[in-house]
Amino acid sequence: MKDYEDLPPIVIKSAKGIYLYDENGKQYVDAVSSWWVNLFGHSNERISTAIAEQAFQMEHVIFANFTHEPAILLAEKLVEITPAGLSKVFFADNGSAAVEVALKMSFQYHQQKNKPKKKRFLALTDAYHGETLGALSVGGVGLYNEIFQPLLLDTVRAHGPDCYRCPFNQSPNSCETPCISFIEEALKKHHEEITAIIIEPLIQAAAGMKMYPPLYLKKVKELCISYDVHLIADEIAVGFGRTGTMFACEQAEITPDFMCLSKGLTGGYLPLSAVVTTEEIYDAFYDDYKSMKAFLHSHSYTGNPIACRAALEVLRIFEEENYIKKIERKSESMKRIATNVFRGHPHIGEYRQIGMVGALELVLDNETRESFPSEDRVGYKIFQIALDKGLLIRPLGNVLYFMPPYVITEAEIEKMIMTTNEAINEYFQCTKVVK
Amino acid sequence: MKDYEDLPPIVIKSAKGIYLYDENGKQYVDAVSSWWVNLFGHSNERISTAIAEQAFQMEHVIFANFTHEPAILLAEKLVEITPAGLSKVFFADNGSAAVEVALKMSFQYHQQKNKPKKKRFLALTDAYHGETLGALSVGGVGLYNEIFQPLLLDTVRAHGPDCYRCPFNQSPNSCETPCISFIEEALKKHHEEITAIIIEPLIQAAAGMKMYPPLYLKKVKELCISYDVHLIADEIAVGFGRTGTMFACEQAEITPDFMCLSKGLTGGYLPLSAVVTTEEIYDAFYDDYKSMKAFLHSHSYTGNPIACRAALEVLRIFEEENYIKKIERKSESMKRIATNVFRGHPHIGEYRQIGMVGALELVLDNETRESFPSEDRVGYKIFQIALDKGLLIRPLGNVLYFMPPYVITEAEIEKMIMTTNEAINEYFQCTKVVK
Ligand SMILES: Cc1ncc(COP(=O)(O)O)c(C=O)c1O
Ligand SMILES: Cc1ncc(COP(=O)(O)O)c(C=O)c1O
Repeated sequence: MKDYEDLPPIVIKSAKGIYLYDENGKQYVDAVSSWWVNLFGHSNERISTAIAEQAFQMEHVIFANFTHEPAILLAEKLVEITPAGLSKVFFADNGSAAVEVALKMSFQYHQQKNKPKKKRFLALTDAYHGETLGALSVGGVGLYNEIFQPLLLDTVRAHGPDCYRCPFNQSPNSCETPCISFIEEALKKHHEEITAIIIEPLIQAAAGMKMYPPLYLKKVKELCISYDVHLIADEIAVGFGRTGTMFACEQAEITPDFMCLSKGLTGGYLPLSAVVTTEEIYDAFYDDYKSMKAFLHSHSYTGNPIACRAALEVLRIFEEENYIKKIERKSESMKRIATNVFRGHPHIGEYRQIGMVGALELVLDNETRESFPSEDRVGYKIFQIALDKGLLIRPLGNVLYFMPPYVITEAEIEKMIMTTNEAINEYFQCTKVVK
Repeated sequence: MKDYEDLPPIVIKSAKGIYLYDENGKQYVDAVSSWWVNLFGHSNERISTAIAEQAFQMEHVIFANFTHEPAILLAEKLVEITPAGLSKVFFADNGSAAVEVALKMSFQYHQQKNKPKKKRFLALTDAYHGETLGALSVGGVGLYNEIFQPLLLDTVRAHGPDCYRCPFNQSPNSCETPCISFIEEALKKHHEEITAIIIEPLIQAAAGMKMYPPLYLKKVKELCISYDVHLIADEIAVGFGRTGTMFACEQAEITPDFMCLSKGLTGGYLPLSAVVTTEEIYDAFYDDYKSMKAFLHSHSYTGNPIACRAALEVLRIFEEENYIKKIERKSESMKRIATNVFRGHPHIGEYRQIGMVGALELVLDNETRESFPSEDRVGYKIFQIALDKGLLIRPLGNVLYFMPPYVITEAEIEKMIMTTNEAINEYFQCTKVVK
């Protein structure tokens, strides 16, 4: 809050397409899709019309013993588009709750399958899965969870992939992912107590947009099978086309036991999440009431019709307007332009990109890859300069990233990249960098 | 899910006022306000118009460094209407997340105030505060949390008030709440490790609509002050007029350290929650960035403009249509009619009511107050009969309850009560009750 003394929060009054407008009429490009959520632009005509219609017809109804068409159709559609083998859908309100549902369901499954020892989770260093205490327990970003340690679960932690500073000195384009060994070792040691691995497929976002190859994910899945551990794919950020395919798991050709979805699910309109799982998981809970095997986890607004209706419209837009193809084209342009613009910059260690997510790693020295000290808040300061120029990109320590709504044009992509570059140069011109 | 083999979920197609309509045109009275959330009727013209307008103007925007009018006005309004001393608002997406925010904030506050031993919470037996792991940890309903024990925090548990089967043989209308001693003993023993007490003011809902007098709440607040422990008032269910006053805490004339709000906040439209707290709590987190004292807890859709807009409209309806007065009148009618109708029934042990919440305790024997065995699922069966008659009331074991939307008319209140009575009688006429 004290940061607001110098940079007061910007009051946004209206938004359209990729643009936000503040109370003084100043325009900002929302180049982070308001944190991965927006897909087809702000105040999207189709989605707004759909939810308005739903609000006048049936805004919400209790989801116990009752259901409704928007939830039914959405569940069917999610089963259709997620990897083969995922056939059951459980709704919740936000990403954190979806993660909690997956953790609880995996745990209860193993309890009911007579594996009482399985009560721990395995997660990667620097993982981010949300901030309710269960989700925070599997997260590994100190900023969010260090102070809360006494309240968190004792999670088994394996070192995640770190392609920019690979401890095996390999390149992600050619490597055989030797870093999978960290997970393998953890499983060898702890598999009897581990119920599930949770992972962010292809991009560890809050870790600093760390990107890793699909092969890693494939091997995680194989290890899960060998060691009788569930795989929870947290596609909350990367789902719905962000990595170039509808779901990141597709690139590794795997089916996880649980897939968590949220954010883009409603196209950036409303909180809603879903956990998609298998028949096998479902069956372990299917029994007479008195067996007490049911999975219980409800929120007051579970299956909210307005949010489901928004999600349905999003999935229709994907199909009818052939967005996966469009994303392919736009992300190619983005890569080409960005690679050209950022190449050779003394303080840009790497520009990396998967699908519509681009990230810049700022370094003190391009050779040694040494980072700026975090107190310098380099990313935060460049973020401020860019804001001033009407561009909203976000910092994560020394990493800057953008992931624009899919409706962005090629010209706008170019402008976004040029402005990012200007902001970076402006910062370094005014700042004496001491190596 | 297996229950659905006999009673398939009812598919609701539209809803208006207190009524739901299924795909065959059958009408149901939503006498539970879709689980406490609906206040002014389904498909309410004013709220639907407000959210449609917002959707076309600005459906959502990132809430870090950015803000917007609906969030600002809503925060200001919440400060205005909550008890004096509550002046800061933190938004989240649902009730569970609000509870997690309050727990985390209380804990971090004490850590930063040099009270590292304070890392446990005190909660009542049979409490319900949501189902993410943190919220579930303070809950005390075995049905929801027993299987998950190995994943839950070690909460200090105090016996809650139980006015129908008072262990001190007193009446809630005249007693001096001797049952406060359970909390007092727990505090005496554990206060050094306890950071906060969390409580459902006036009605322990999931416990079986257990109702207790304001004096109890007043004493809890006094104990919190004596023992240097925060009070978290979970008004997620009881807030927004449900108990007859805007907030249940008002009846005890107390200001908690944290008040959690959700459900009725958006009038039953959309998931949204808020934690309202004091200047003193806020100040403990206000410092330079590098001190790392900030409270971090974000959800992608925090401060969602559409949901905030719905909430603003709800608060306007409250004021402009003078609903607190209307609730007073309607709840008086409800009490008068229900007391008359249910009086003397051999299997109705008690009809109790606070504000617009009415509950029936079904007993095997009115004298001994002996319960029906839970395997009989008496409440569930009467719920089914009532559904058949077009009335949605809900069971909690042997308790049946209703809490209709505030737009219900006196004639509709009477019909709701008469139909409930018919369903109960039908059940007992067809069922041989063995004492
Ligand atoms: C990978 C991942 N998991 C979980 C979450 C949590 O979702 P939410 O913020 O909706 O609780 C996020 C959101 O930031 C995320 O990026
Ligand atoms: C008292 C209380 N606290 C917390 C919650 C949890 O809220 P939600 O269901 O929105 O997560 C509920 C909801 O049922 C509740 O009644």
